Amino acid sequence: MSTEPKTTDALTPQISTGGLPASSKIYVHGQIHDVQVPMRQIHVGGGEAPQVVYDSSGPYTDPAAAIDIRKGLEDKRGAWLAERGDVEAYEGRAVTAADNGFAKGDKLVPEFPAIRPPLRAKGDKAVTQLAYARAGIVTPEMEFVAIRENNGRIEAWEKARDGHDFGAAIPDLVTPEFVRQEIAEGRAIIPANINHRELEPMIIGRNFLVKINANIGNSAVTSSMEEEVEKMVWAIRWGGDTVMDLSTGRNIHNIREWIIRNAPVPIGTVPLYQALEKVNGIAEDLTWEVFRDTLIEQAEQGVDYFTIHAGVRLHMVPMTAKRVTGIVSRGGSIMAKWCLHHHKESFLYEHFDEICDICRKYDVSFSLGDGLRPGSIADANDEAQFAELETLGELTKIAWAKDCQVMIEGPGHVAMHKIKANMDKQLEHCHEAPFYTLGPLTTDIAPGYDHITSAIGAAMIGWYGCAMLCYVTPKEHLGLPDRDDVKTGVITYKLAAHAADLAKGHPGAQERDDAVSRARFEFRWEDQFNLSLDPDTARDFHDETMPKEAHKVAHFCSMCGPKFCSMRISHDIRAEAEKADGFAKMAAKFQEGGELYVPADQVADQVEPAE
Amino acid sequence: MSTEPKTTDALTPQISTGGLPASSKIYVHGQIHDVQVPMRQIHVGGGEAPQVVYDSSGPYTDPAAAIDIRKGLEDKRGAWLAERGDVEAYEGRAVTAADNGFAKGDKLVPEFPAIRPPLRAKGDKAVTQLAYARAGIVTPEMEFVAIRENNGRIEAWEKARDGHDFGAAIPDLVTPEFVRQEIAEGRAIIPANINHRELEPMIIGRNFLVKINANIGNSAVTSSMEEEVEKMVWAIRWGGDTVMDLSTGRNIHNIREWIIRNAPVPIGTVPLYQALEKVNGIAEDLTWEVFRDTLIEQAEQGVDYFTIHAGVRLHMVPMTAKRVTGIVSRGGSIMAKWCLHHHKESFLYEHFDEICDICRKYDVSFSLGDGLRPGSIADANDEAQFAELETLGELTKIAWAKDCQVMIEGPGHVAMHKIKANMDKQLEHCHEAPFYTLGPLTTDIAPGYDHITSAIGAAMIGWYGCAMLCYVTPKEHLGLPDRDDVKTGVITYKLAAHAADLAKGHPGAQERDDAVSRARFEFRWEDQFNLSLDPDTARDFHDETMPKEAHKVAHFCSMCGPKFCSMRISHDIRAEAEKADGFAKMAAKFQEGGELYVPADQVADQVEPAE
Repeated sequence: MSTEPKTTDALTPQISTGGLPASSKIYVHGQIHDVQVPMRQIHVGGGEAPQVVYDSSGPYTDPAAAIDIRKGLEDKRGAWLAERGDVEAYEGRAVTAADNGFAKGDKLVPEFPAIRPPLRAKGDKAVTQLAYARAGIVTPEMEFVAIRENNGRIEAWEKARDGHDFGAAIPDLVTPEFVRQEIAEGRAIIPANINHRELEPMIIGRNFLVKINANIGNSAVTSSMEEEVEKMVWAIRWGGDTVMDLSTGRNIHNIREWIIRNAPVPIGTVPLYQALEKVNGIAEDLTWEVFRDTLIEQAEQGVDYFTIHAGVRLHMVPMTAKRVTGIVSRGGSIMAKWCLHHHKESFLYEHFDEICDICRKYDVSFSLGDGLRPGSIADANDEAQFAELETLGELTKIAWAKDCQVMIEGPGHVAMHKIKANMDKQLEHCHEAPFYTLGPLTTDIAPGYDHITSAIGAAMIGWYGCAMLCYVTPKEHLGLPDRDDVKTGVITYKLAAHAADLAKGHPGAQERDDAVSRARFEFRWEDQFNLSLDPDTARDFHDETMPKEAHKVAHFCSMCGPKFCSMRISHDIRAEAEKADGFAKMAAKFQEGGELYVPADQVADQVEPAE
Repeated sequence: MSTEPKTTDALTPQISTGGLPASSKIYVHGQIHDVQVPMRQIHVGGGEAPQVVYDSSGPYTDPAAAIDIRKGLEDKRGAWLAERGDVEAYEGRAVTAADNGFAKGDKLVPEFPAIRPPLRAKGDKAVTQLAYARAGIVTPEMEFVAIRENNGRIEAWEKARDGHDFGAAIPDLVTPEFVRQEIAEGRAIIPANINHRELEPMIIGRNFLVKINANIGNSAVTSSMEEEVEKMVWAIRWGGDTVMDLSTGRNIHNIREWIIRNAPVPIGTVPLYQALEKVNGIAEDLTWEVFRDTLIEQAEQGVDYFTIHAGVRLHMVPMTAKRVTGIVSRGGSIMAKWCLHHHKESFLYEHFDEICDICRKYDVSFSLGDGLRPGSIADANDEAQFAELETLGELTKIAWAKDCQVMIEGPGHVAMHKIKANMDKQLEHCHEAPFYTLGPLTTDIAPGYDHITSAIGAAMIGWYGCAMLCYVTPKEHLGLPDRDDVKTGVITYKLAAHAADLAKGHPGAQERDDAVSRARFEFRWEDQFNLSLDPDTARDFHDETMPKEAHKVAHFCSMCGPKFCSMRISHDIRAEAEKADGFAKMAAKFQEGGELYVPADQVADQVEPAE
């Protein structure tokens, strides 16, 4: 069975659709609201029930869904928004030539054909999930994510919980009310711009499953809207929970419209990138007015979270002077340059209140950017980094006061022994707002393998409490990731996030591991492939040396061969034990047997190694 | 500059030789003994001194060395052994047809042409590094590793040490006397069979650099001696510190001879595999006599360490009955089957004293096998695993009493929160003998990516104190690794081991990271490639989008493009700051500036998020 995704017909060229192997899409209905929560069922053999797994891939993996990227995904949230009665449609900001970098003629990516008028909050109403949560309202978005987090489980987890959670408070069952409380407390966010009605909501917070973000973005050189939509679809197919569009160059506006209209996951951006394009790449020419206009432009399109580097303050810039790698955040370096040139406090910091007002009107979540994150092992956990973190904590309170949802971005490059301090300080200074880190990379000596140097740090900080991990691809520091790199990055981060869920003791997290292990022990090769994060690669690797269909039921693989297969021998052992007395009686019998050697404590005196 | 290794002429087909890019081989001379310790110097630009890095690759990367695998490597240790005067050459055991699996005619791999008569200890002398260490003798092997561990540094490290070492005691400079003490205490081993005279000694212990092992091995199907030698050469070229030959099938004896004669690194084996071949793969037919004969056969050839699964005892087998994946160690499952079939304690356990006598006579180090290691997240840290670990601790004392060097093998599959317990229990039960783990894998759901699931666990346990990490390749659980998989596995484990060294605060470990970071900040692309663990891949990735030579001095890469390069902007910032007042004055000035917002503690009351 080939599992290469189908690319659809001429109407929607290059879009990867079709289910994953042995999988079907199911929808779980809400009890409070009219929500249908997608999940993936993986069918397995051995008489086992299907595995239900979290599914970020949207309708693209639903064979019943009609995909036409020119129409966009179905408007699922429109009814929820209408019911709340606190938003209004209006004639949005007019698109300018600058929005698309003055692209013209055949260089201009066509407009998305079915643009809706944008929505905004009526009057000064707060239409954020935080505002509703504080008001005691359980929204459809909250119920949706509650169901989603339980992976199809409707009863509280009753088995012993095995993990170490560093003070997280993960419940045995995620209820809509629990979601509401976590959001009200600021410990979790649901990035869900009211203009992103195609969204399948998801939650980011320490007491929920660890999430991952994948970055996409057109380069200055070339890009079509199909390519960019496909990058997003490809990233979520393999498990990306959110996607950041980091496009630069021309056509940013039009391409973003295509992406959002076709995105079932939250889309994040760094608005500064587009603002910089509008001033021809000259950081010093940036103004609050250009930036503000860009925020509104993107909020109207439906961007779900904004990275805002408002924590880079003028007095912090000199703290980076002695660094080995200076400022490595693009946004951070742009703002630092601006501050220095104008000898002024950053307009992001000065106008933070107004930024909050915009976010509040559309429910754009903040991702407070770590513009001064370390770009090398040498610079980790330094004065500049932690000074900014404290400022992000102050900004968090301001945003919260405006009912805005907030998460905090984190590093970067950090050796293992310094990772936990990042988590601890973030929890303390940022009042438990969710943490969202890039890696961190645990060494600098392996360019080409930075998905791995960073997956080590990502798994650890996820375990310690980080809520979302921004992926790193093998091309990090070297070039633009291609399709394979994106997949490798996503799968690598999915496994890191899952390792963190296991270590935190997330209820039910181990079910999938156990299903793989049982399949492995029972030589159900197809099930091993199908249950894995990347069924195609697992299958291909196996088939390189044992390609035949008959090998799919073989009680060994080419790694050890039949004679040395420990699992096969384990079966023999069990059979042999059954034949004899059964393991239980055997155990009793053997434990009576005497010791052949003197016990360690008695032998200690005579053999203690010494000089 | 192409960096693809040369393959040598027709005399030594398929062997990868030639230096790594921008590198030269240097040899540091001993002060006490006539030892020449190889190191690699990486030449960099920017006016910086060359980076000296640990070099496991042997003469194959020395352009001055004449490589002819039919002659083997130079006998470097013969003079050291002769000087000690406690060994004698003798007519070794005659090779039997069974040793090569009864391969005949053109199926029989030719004998290595220049076989030496083996050496053994005279009388009942102990010729182990442990015996010498206890007697207060600093051997050439000890001086060799002391120099090697310092990476060319001859002065004690004086800068502040940055790390968390969990009770390790890593010195500021490794002296030969420190090495001697660590070996005498059993905390470190130098695997160095007296019959492996081609060896460049290395040390395995918690207070030294973390090491990695790569597995090779011919399959039952096909193999030539050149192929197997090349696998070893390839693995050490990228950083394998030791190599285990896990061959099964025919020609095991002859191929092993070719490998050892050409190996500058310690070679480990699992003698049980060959013994099983000698009884046609029927575990029940194994006998102490066949096993003993195999130990002598391999000891005479020069195998440096034996994995011995003597900790699998009869009464432990039933403890595995409820496991999800039973027994997953090949050796463990073979011994469990034998015990069960005969209803007897294992011959390895019963004859452990005699095994020690053999190891003592040739200085074969023990790698006490974890036959009951967990093969799934579900089985981690269970009764069977820890019962065996305690037995390994008992066996350690017995081996130490016979002056034998010992390390302890560890898991396997362990979720992150259970890893530290493995290290702690091993230190406690095995009296600080070095720990040598396989991974551990931190989740089971990513076959095809188990080099990564395991690198996470490996980096962590290396940080906690594990002395050597056995690599896992992307093919783990699926098939036999090919050349690319071996390289990926080695590089992945090198970066994990290095991340551990950094986190432990190993003196000087961060020098290479800093050199890469400086090169990155200064856009010295060639230096970034050359300083990295895998220069070829780093260069290839970069050149995919920016292939021209001119791009090698470009002040940006294709990842962000010129306009958004934060490092380029950081340079602008520094230049701008210099132009103005200098950072120092600026810092003072900006810190005087007032706060734009109310400080967090004053604002807390009004904006604390609440329901």
